[in-house]
Amino acid sequence: MENDFFHFELLAQDGEARAGIFHTPHGDIPTPVFAPVGTQATVKAVTPAQLEETGATLVLANTYHLYLRPGADLVEEMGGLHQFMRWNGPILTDSGGFQVFSLAEMRKIDEEGVTFKSHIDGSMHRLTPEKAIAVQEKLGADIIMAFDECAPPYDLAYNQQAMQRTHNWAVRCQQARTRPDQALFGIVQGGIFPDLRRQSAEWIASQDFPGHAIGGLSVGETKQEMHAMIEVVNAILPREKPRYLMGVGAPDDLVNGVARGIDIFDCVLPTRLARHQSALTLNGRLNLMNAGFARDPQPIEPTCTCYTCRHFSRAYLRHLIVAKEMLAATLVSIHNIHMLEELMRTMRQAILEGRFHQFFEQFITNQERKS
Amino acid sequence: MENDFFHFELLAQDGEARAGIFHTPHGDIPTPVFAPVGTQATVKAVTPAQLEETGATLVLANTYHLYLRPGADLVEEMGGLHQFMRWNGPILTDSGGFQVFSLAEMRKIDEEGVTFKSHIDGSMHRLTPEKAIAVQEKLGADIIMAFDECAPPYDLAYNQQAMQRTHNWAVRCQQARTRPDQALFGIVQGGIFPDLRRQSAEWIASQDFPGHAIGGLSVGETKQEMHAMIEVVNAILPREKPRYLMGVGAPDDLVNGVARGIDIFDCVLPTRLARHQSALTLNGRLNLMNAGFARDPQPIEPTCTCYTCRHFSRAYLRHLIVAKEMLAATLVSIHNIHMLEELMRTMRQAILEGRFHQFFEQFITNQERKS
Repeated sequence: MENDFFHFELLAQDGEARAGIFHTPHGDIPTPVFAPVGTQATVKAVTPAQLEETGATLVLANTYHLYLRPGADLVEEMGGLHQFMRWNGPILTDSGGFQVFSLAEMRKIDEEGVTFKSHIDGSMHRLTPEKAIAVQEKLGADIIMAFDECAPPYDLAYNQQAMQRTHNWAVRCQQARTRPDQALFGIVQGGIFPDLRRQSAEWIASQDFPGHAIGGLSVGETKQEMHAMIEVVNAILPREKPRYLMGVGAPDDLVNGVARGIDIFDCVLPTRLARHQSALTLNGRLNLMNAGFARDPQPIEPTCTCYTCRHFSRAYLRHLIVAKEMLAATLVSIHNIHMLEELMRTMRQAILEGRFHQFFEQFITNQERKS
Repeated sequence: MENDFFHFELLAQDGEARAGIFHTPHGDIPTPVFAPVGTQATVKAVTPAQLEETGATLVLANTYHLYLRPGADLVEEMGGLHQFMRWNGPILTDSGGFQVFSLAEMRKIDEEGVTFKSHIDGSMHRLTPEKAIAVQEKLGADIIMAFDECAPPYDLAYNQQAMQRTHNWAVRCQQARTRPDQALFGIVQGGIFPDLRRQSAEWIASQDFPGHAIGGLSVGETKQEMHAMIEVVNAILPREKPRYLMGVGAPDDLVNGVARGIDIFDCVLPTRLARHQSALTLNGRLNLMNAGFARDPQPIEPTCTCYTCRHFSRAYLRHLIVAKEMLAATLVSIHNIHMLEELMRTMRQAILEGRFHQFFEQFITNQERKS
């Protein structure tokens, strides 16, 4: 895609893995990219300056949460999300759909939209494709998402219905949008059913979106099913547009996603794990609460170059956790995000140098050796 | 005082207010100075890098807390407090005395020391002057404190007794210490009784400590009583040694302390207020929860140069607080510490330029206008 505001530049392909640059109004996103999640207009426990230092370029914020609190009008009045949360790089907002289905109470879906009860104060709300776009236009992210329905992965009849609704809603989102400085991505659904995924990918690909997302994965299906669905969909989605696998962020999922042609990922995993004392490393997760770390002078990962690993021992991090100090969440979040960003940079470099296949083999072997 | 490790250089005096430099093994402390408190080897919610950016030079850590958790042996094994918490500037530890009397349960005081029950796990412990020094030597701060007893301010008989004990314990602390790279400060007690304070100051001043502290203030007495006690004590303490007013940090107390010849202050106030949504400004405190800030695009203090005020609106901070986001405590802590450090810098500059008196008059007038 190319217009005055957005341009996806494919620099190299190695197998199905791609390296590129997605140019946006708030700067360039080197792809493949992992976006940390700033649900309520903050990546939890981390300042924008600290986030920038991890190497993050793209941040996701949740429309559902911001619509409920502090409200899209307030964010717009404060100059939009970039100005409000002071992330000057690219931002992506989801459509609110997934959260309505996973967080809100008493939701009622009809062909027009979804009525739901706020998980914060029990107030009643209604989101439609048009409303989801209006809210996202007020928030002002660079990449915005079509309003979709994410169905339970194994229910065929329901997935057929939800997919159809997602397609209808995608058209309405395209018609509703007015801002040329936002890229609206269409979303492929279809559960774990190859036929549905194929049908959905073909239809979404035909709608002239500037980018495409794969929704409804990492929601309970097996890894094999996830991989199969990505392969089915990416065989159809046009190569010249960015592909976004929504809500996925475990290291092996990132590697497997890139190997199958995904360009963009997002997930709460690194920050959520950090708040539960779990540090990501290339050799698996460390539970920093473990008594074995009490006198361990090493950093989380000796080869890591993040602020946390350059300065603090596992012993200190464990002390902060045991003493219930907030700094623990900050320091481990910084490490976990940095670790995933570093993994993305490593993969990108391998693709650019035509040696992604070797990287992939080594990563998978290492994974299997551990399990 | 002067030795290979410590040297207090008095640069200027304006009325009773003094500006100087306290040279320590971990760097120079420009005085007057305010030390933020890192109770459990972390200034709550703030990284050392963020702390340095506020202009803080000296950090206090609490011996009582660190003795109980993670333990002084562990901190020593990890290279001492500077290495453990990665604050490379000067550190001061208190003696544990104040916390034993204010936090521990079932304390029992005798002439030898104090037996108490941990507030964390109910285990029994005993601190003596010798033990308090041994623990502080393991922690390894630059400035360490004599083990003292802080009595309720209005009980004359008890204060006489506690003062006598504090003096006896000060001698034992001096005898017990072994590290030349730590400056042991003696502590003046005596409640709100001028005669006791005078007696205590004279005795402590005679003991050849490299610095002196005033304990037992800001514990329930009136401001007038606090000021009177500082005046009585500082008329006696030798000019050539640094004077430390313990546990005091409200802006007007800092100004009144400096005006009466204090060089060093510490207090949990800026970080504790921050965690309770309260921002310090020169015009009083802002409760950032107030609905009136919901759409306020201004920073906490428009003239402030801290990271928080350079980037974030009151509207955003209020949103973080309402949404219970940890980042709120971090950002408001940064501002509050910076505000006090800036106040200290302003006073120091005024003293160096011989115009502290004008600064003081203006500050007090402003205070009275507000109240």
